[in-house]
Amino acid sequence: MKVQRVDMFVCPSATPADVSGLQALADAGKIKPDSLVALVGKTDGTGYHDDWGRVWADAALRDWTAKFLGVPKDDVAKHVIFVLSGGCPGVITPHIAAVTREWVDGQPGKEKRLAVGRAGSDAIAPEEVGRMGMIRKVASATHAAMKDAAIEDPKDVHLVMVKVPGLTVASVADAESRGHTVVSHDLTFGPEGAGSYANDGAALGVAMALGEVPESRLTDEVVRRDWDLYSEVAMTSSGGEKRHGEVVVFGNSAASVSPLVIGHSVTKDFIDAQGVRNALRSAGLKFNGGLPDEKDLDRLVHLFAKSVIPGTDKIRDQHITLLDDHDAYHIGKALGGMLIASVTGRTTNYVSGGERNSHQGPPGGNIVAAVVRADA
Amino acid sequence: MKVQRVDMFVCPSATPADVSGLQALADAGKIKPDSLVALVGKTDGTGYHDDWGRVWADAALRDWTAKFLGVPKDDVAKHVIFVLSGGCPGVITPHIAAVTREWVDGQPGKEKRLAVGRAGSDAIAPEEVGRMGMIRKVASATHAAMKDAAIEDPKDVHLVMVKVPGLTVASVADAESRGHTVVSHDLTFGPEGAGSYANDGAALGVAMALGEVPESRLTDEVVRRDWDLYSEVAMTSSGGEKRHGEVVVFGNSAASVSPLVIGHSVTKDFIDAQGVRNALRSAGLKFNGGLPDEKDLDRLVHLFAKSVIPGTDKIRDQHITLLDDHDAYHIGKALGGMLIASVTGRTTNYVSGGERNSHQGPPGGNIVAAVVRADA
Amino acid sequence: MKVQRVDMFVCPSATPADVSGLQALADAGKIKPDSLVALVGKTDGTGYHDDWGRVWADAALRDWTAKFLGVPKDDVAKHVIFVLSGGCPGVITPHIAAVTREWVDGQPGKEKRLAVGRAGSDAIAPEEVGRMGMIRKVASATHAAMKDAAIEDPKDVHLVMVKVPGLTVASVADAESRGHTVVSHDLTFGPEGAGSYANDGAALGVAMALGEVPESRLTDEVVRRDWDLYSEVAMTSSGGEKRHGEVVVFGNSAASVSPLVIGHSVTKDFIDAQGVRNALRSAGLKFNGGLPDEKDLDRLVHLFAKSVIPGTDKIRDQHITLLDDHDAYHIGKALGGMLIASVTGRTTNYVSGGERNSHQGPPGGNIVAAVVRADA
Amino acid sequence: MKVQRVDMFVCPSATPADVSGLQALADAGKIKPDSLVALVGKTDGTGYHDDWGRVWADAALRDWTAKFLGVPKDDVAKHVIFVLSGGCPGVITPHIAAVTREWVDGQPGKEKRLAVGRAGSDAIAPEEVGRMGMIRKVASATHAAMKDAAIEDPKDVHLVMVKVPGLTVASVADAESRGHTVVSHDLTFGPEGAGSYANDGAALGVAMALGEVPESRLTDEVVRRDWDLYSEVAMTSSGGEKRHGEVVVFGNSAASVSPLVIGHSVTKDFIDAQGVRNALRSAGLKFNGGLPDEKDLDRLVHLFAKSVIPGTDKIRDQHITLLDDHDAYHIGKALGGMLIASVTGRTTNYVSGGERNSHQGPPGGNIVAAVVRADA
Repeated sequence: MKVQRVDMFVCPSATPADVSGLQALADAGKIKPDSLVALVGKTDGTGYHDDWGRVWADAALRDWTAKFLGVPKDDVAKHVIFVLSGGCPGVITPHIAAVTREWVDGQPGKEKRLAVGRAGSDAIAPEEVGRMGMIRKVASATHAAMKDAAIEDPKDVHLVMVKVPGLTVASVADAESRGHTVVSHDLTFGPEGAGSYANDGAALGVAMALGEVPESRLTDEVVRRDWDLYSEVAMTSSGGEKRHGEVVVFGNSAASVSPLVIGHSVTKDFIDAQGVRNALRSAGLKFNGGLPDEKDLDRLVHLFAKSVIPGTDKIRDQHITLLDDHDAYHIGKALGGMLIASVTGRTTNYVSGGERNSHQGPPGGNIVAAVVRADA
Repeated sequence: MKVQRVDMFVCPSATPADVSGLQALADAGKIKPDSLVALVGKTDGTGYHDDWGRVWADAALRDWTAKFLGVPKDDVAKHVIFVLSGGCPGVITPHIAAVTREWVDGQPGKEKRLAVGRAGSDAIAPEEVGRMGMIRKVASATHAAMKDAAIEDPKDVHLVMVKVPGLTVASVADAESRGHTVVSHDLTFGPEGAGSYANDGAALGVAMALGEVPESRLTDEVVRRDWDLYSEVAMTSSGGEKRHGEVVVFGNSAASVSPLVIGHSVTKDFIDAQGVRNALRSAGLKFNGGLPDEKDLDRLVHLFAKSVIPGTDKIRDQHITLLDDHDAYHIGKALGGMLIASVTGRTTNYVSGGERNSHQGPPGGNIVAAVVRADA
Repeated sequence: MKVQRVDMFVCPSATPADVSGLQALADAGKIKPDSLVALVGKTDGTGYHDDWGRVWADAALRDWTAKFLGVPKDDVAKHVIFVLSGGCPGVITPHIAAVTREWVDGQPGKEKRLAVGRAGSDAIAPEEVGRMGMIRKVASATHAAMKDAAIEDPKDVHLVMVKVPGLTVASVADAESRGHTVVSHDLTFGPEGAGSYANDGAALGVAMALGEVPESRLTDEVVRRDWDLYSEVAMTSSGGEKRHGEVVVFGNSAASVSPLVIGHSVTKDFIDAQGVRNALRSAGLKFNGGLPDEKDLDRLVHLFAKSVIPGTDKIRDQHITLLDDHDAYHIGKALGGMLIASVTGRTTNYVSGGERNSHQGPPGGNIVAAVVRADA
Repeated sequence: MKVQRVDMFVCPSATPADVSGLQALADAGKIKPDSLVALVGKTDGTGYHDDWGRVWADAALRDWTAKFLGVPKDDVAKHVIFVLSGGCPGVITPHIAAVTREWVDGQPGKEKRLAVGRAGSDAIAPEEVGRMGMIRKVASATHAAMKDAAIEDPKDVHLVMVKVPGLTVASVADAESRGHTVVSHDLTFGPEGAGSYANDGAALGVAMALGEVPESRLTDEVVRRDWDLYSEVAMTSSGGEKRHGEVVVFGNSAASVSPLVIGHSVTKDFIDAQGVRNALRSAGLKFNGGLPDEKDLDRLVHLFAKSVIPGTDKIRDQHITLLDDHDAYHIGKALGGMLIASVTGRTTNYVSGGERNSHQGPPGGNIVAAVVRADA
C-alpha cells in the first residue's frame, strides 16, 4: 500500500525575500516540486496593517515556488499552501517552514506518525462570513482534509490551519445588494471587526468538525460571544481577496511513515509555561514533573502557538494593563514568543496572535502544537 | 543588642495615584512613620518620556508619605527613598512595595535574614557623571549602606538600588563653563546617552564596592565599552534633578531577625528561565532540577528583575529583530515581565529595563533578586 | 435689563497638574467663583487610552476648582463644565481655557457678541446611546442651552460642546437584562465602537436642534452610515461614567456685552487651510483673498477645531496611507494641529480628533470655530 | 552647441513595488535608457528601521531599471541615482519622480532653466565620516556636479541631494584598527548618532561648496554643535554600505532648454507656511501677498521639502511636547507633509525628515524647493 512520508524543514529568513534556505533544501533534494505541500512562516516586520515585509515575503516566496514547480505564479496556490504570519516582535525569529509529503510503498506502522492533508471549502458568500454558513463549510473542508491526511480519529488531529474569506467594501456591497446582511461593517480585526468574525467562524468550523463543540450549540449568535466554545487546534486567518476556505490538517496517522510526530496542548492562561511543556509531552518528549533537557529539545523540530491576548484585565486575580496599551497587539504577540522560547530554548517558533479573545483556544489560554522527531 | 527587623509589603495599584494599599498597611500598623525606609514600585503607564503616570504616582505617593510622616513634602526624601519605575507593559502589575525596618532588642540568629541599609553619596559633579568620579562615589556610598545594613560580606548583598545624577542642559553648561568636558551631549538614554552612562557608572560603582570588578580594571574608557565588567546586583537609575547619589542595599545579615531572606541570580541570556529559577533557589526555595511548586511560590514575597535587551541580534545563534523595532524599549521590558511571570506564576513583579546593553548584569543576561519568607 | 458679559482666558499648562495660570487669573480677579462656567482644555500626554496626563489634569483641576468655588469636589460638575481633551501631539500646546459669564446691567448692543449657555439633558438609557433616544434628548438640551445663552437664531450658534453617556460592560448588561439591545458590543472608539456611536448620536442631536439636519431624515439607521448628515458646530465626547448629557452652546447674542465674538466654518477636506481662514473671517477678522496679518491675528483669542481623519484613502484624488497607519489616531490629531497652527501662527489651539469619520463636520472635512476680540 | 533638456515626471505608487508609472513613461517615450538620471521618491511604509517598504521599493525599482537600461542590476547605480526616502505618514502620497536629461542642439536661452548634474566623491574613510574629511570631499563633489550641470553661480543651485557613507560596526572596527577614532559609537540617527553626523557632515560640505558657510568657520567641532552654520539647499542621507559620496545638483542654467525652473526658500520655523509660499515664488509662481491660485498651482511640477523637527520645545514662544513624544520622528515627518500640502493643495510632495536638528536648513526651519513649469 501507499503510505505518506511527511517532513518539515525550518529555514530562518535573513530578510523577507530570503529564499536561500528553501533553495538549499531544494538543492539537497529535501524538497521536490511534487512533495512540497505547504510553506508556513513568520515574516520579518511589524505585523501591522502597513507591514510590507509580509507582502514582500509572499511575493518573493511565490516567485521562487513558481520557478521551483515550473508553473505560472498564479497557479502556485493550487499546489502549495502559503501561511505567512506577519510580525516577529521580540524573540520570534523570522523563518519559513517547508512541509513535504511523499507517497511511498509501505505498511502502516505500530506508531502513528505525522500526516498532513489539505482541502478547499465550497465558496463562502460574504453573508456567510463569521456565521453558520462559514462554520459548516469549514467543518466539511476539515473532514475532507482529514481524509486526505488519512486520519480518522479527531483525537489524532493536533493542528488545523485555515484561511477563509474576510469582508471587503466590495463584498459587503455585493451581499447587501442581494438583500443580505453581513456580520459587521467594521472591516478590521477589532473586537467587532469582520476579520475577527471570519477567523472565529473558521475556528468554530474546525471545532464542529472535530467534535470539540457539538453542532447543536452552534448558532450565528455564539460567534465572538460564547467563549466557552472553542477549538484546541485551530489556527485561522482571513483575507478579503479569498472566495473559498483552505484547510491544512496536521495530525498523526498509522498510514504515515514520517520520522515526525505531532502533539498539542493549551495554556490555561497567558503566563502558563506548563501548557507549553504539556504540548512537548503530548508530542512525545518524555520529561516528567520537571523540565525538558537539551537532549529532549534536540528532538523538537518546530512549534506552533497562538498568542491571543486575554479578554479581561486580570491574570490569576492580578490586574494587568495590556488591554489599555495602544500596542497591545504587538506586545501580545511578543509575549507569546517569550513564553514559548523560554521553554523551548530557541527563538525560531511560529507564534501568531495579538488579537483579543478568540475561539482559537480556551478563554485566556492559547493553543500550542509541537512537532518532534520520533524517538529512535 | 539591637537587631533589625525588616519587612516588605507589596500593594497593587489600581491607578497611579492609588495609595489605598499603603493606607491599609498604615491602618493595620504594619508600616509606621519611623519604620518606613523605602517605596519601590512599578507605575501604570507607557514608561516612555511622556508617561505622566509615573510623575503622578510620585506626586501622590510623596503627598501621602508627607502626611503619614508628618513632615513637609520636600523633606520626604530625607526619610523614605522612592524608586518608581515607569511602564507596566504586558504582564507586569502596577504596584508599590513598602520596605520597613525596625530596630528591636535581640540576638544575632543562626540564619542570616533580610537587612536593608541606606546611604547618600558625596555630591557628584556633572563632569563626573558616567566616569570614575561617579564610580568611586557610588562605591563609597555602597560601603556606607552595607554598614548601615549591618552587612560585612559582599556575598551577602543581593540587590543594590541606586539613584544618581544625570546630565541636563544646565549641568552640561556648568561643567563646560568650568573647563571640563562631559561624557556625552546626548541627554537621552540611548546607546551614547548621558542617562545610560550615568546608570552604568553607578552600576560599576556597585561592582567596585562589592569586588565584582577590581578597581584596577576600571577607567573612564570601560564605561559602556567593556561589557565583561558588570554587577550582578546593581539596579540603577538617574535623573537630571539630583546632585547626590542614593544607595539602598538589600542583603542578608546575622544582625537581622526579619522573617524574610533575599537571594539573587542572573539569567545567562534573554530567554533563560533557568536563571529566574536559580534566583528563587538562591533565596531559599528548595526545588531541585525541576520547578517550584505552589507551596514554594507561596513563600515568595517579591521579585526584582532587570530586562536589559541584548546588544546583539542573536540569541542562542538565532537572529532576532528586536534591535530594529521602534518599540524595542517597551517590548523589551514586557518580555522580561513574561519571563519572570511564567516562573513565579504571578504578574506582580518588579521588572524594569528596556534599555540596550548595561553593566547591570552580564552581557545579554539580566539580574533577578528574590525575597522569600524564611522556611518555618 | 441684565445682559451677559462672557470672557475667555487661555492658560498654557506646563504640566497636566499645572493650575498656576488659573490661579493667576483668580488672583487678578478675572475669574470669580460665580463667573466661571467652563474649563476647556488640551492636556499633555499621548491621548491614548492609557494617557494618565488627562486623568491627572482632571483630578488637579477639579481639586483646584473645588477650593476656588468653596464646594465639595463632587459638586464641582454642578457649577463648572470640564471639557478636557487628551493628547497634544506635534504642534498643539497643552492649555486650559477658562470661560466666564457675568450678568451685568446693560442694553442689547448693535452687534451680537459672544454668549454662552449650558443645559443638562434628561437621563439617557444605555439602549438609547447612539440612537434616536440620545439624538432627541441632546437636541432638547441644545435648545435649553441656547435659551440659557439668550440665543434665538440657530445661525448665531457657532460651537456646541456636548458630553454624553457611552456604554460600559455594566450598562450593556443592564439594557440587555431589561430586554433591550444596544448599538454595539464594541466598547471602543473604533468604526463600530459604542464610543463612536455615542459621539455621533450627540452630534446629530445638535444638528437636529439647529436645523442642520431635518428630523425627518434621522433614524437609528443613519448614525455612522449616512455621512451627508452632520453638524458644522458640534464637538462631542462620551464617557461610560455619565448618565446625562451636558451641553454648552457658544454663539453670538444681542443680549451680550462681551468684548468677544465667535464665528465658524468648515474645512472641505483634510488639507484645506482655506476653511481655517474662513473661520477666522466668520468671526470678524477682515482680510480678503489673502492672509490674516499679525494685527488681525492679535485679535484672535482662541480657536477650536476638530481633526477627524478622512474615511477614504484619497485626498483630492491622491492616495494617502493614513488609514493603514497604526498611529493614525495620534497622527491625525497632530495633522489637524499643524493645519490650524500654520494659519493662526500660534500653537495654542484646541484641536481634538483622530477618529475616523464622524457626523461632526462634513465628510472628509472638519469644524473650525474662532473666538476673536471684537473690532474696537 | 549642446544644451541640456531636463524633465521631471511624478508617478504615484500604489505599492512599494509599483513600477507601472515608470513603465507608462517608458512606453510613451518620455523616459529613455540614456536620459534617465535619477529616481527620487517617497516609499510607502513607516519609515522606521524595520520598514521593509523602502527596501522592497529599492529592489523592485532597481530590477525594473536594470531591465530598462539593459545592464546588470549591480551596474544600475552607475547610471541612475536612487534617492528613496521611506515613510509616508499622514498626507504624503507615495510616489517616484523620474528625472531625465537629454543633450540637444540649442542655444543658451534668455532665461535660466532647470539643469541637473551629478558627481561621485572620492572614497570617504570611516574616520572622516561627520568630520572635515567628509565635508571637503562632499564640497569637491558638489563643485563637480555643478560643472556637470553647467551651473556656475552658486546662487543658481536650489537643491543638492547627497548620499554619503555612514558608520557600521565593521567600518568602526576598521578605523580603530588603523589607529583612528570615529565621530560616534552610536550607529543610529539619534542626536549623537553616526548617521546624524554623516548627514550633517554632508550638508556642511554642500554649504562650503556653495559659500553658504565660509571654510574658515568649519571644523570637526562645529558639526552638530553650531546650528547657525547650515545649507539652504542640501538634502542628505547616509548608509553603511556606501564608500563614496554621491551628489546630484538641481539648479537653473542658461545652458538648459528645459521647460522647467527650480527655486527654493526656507521656513523660519516649524509652522511657517509663508516659507513654503516663498519657495513657490522663488520658482516663478507670481502671486503676491496672498496665496497661489489654482492656475499657479497647476504649473507646480514637484516640491521637495525637509521636515527636521525643532531642537527646542518652543515654537514662537509657546511650549510644544514633540520632543518628548516617542513617535516624534514619525509625527515630525507627517507635520511637514501637512504644512506643504496645505499650501500646494496636493499630497504628492517629497517630504523627508523627522530627525531632530540638522545643518540642513536653519535652526528650527526647513528647506523647501519647488520645480515649476516655466511661464509660457
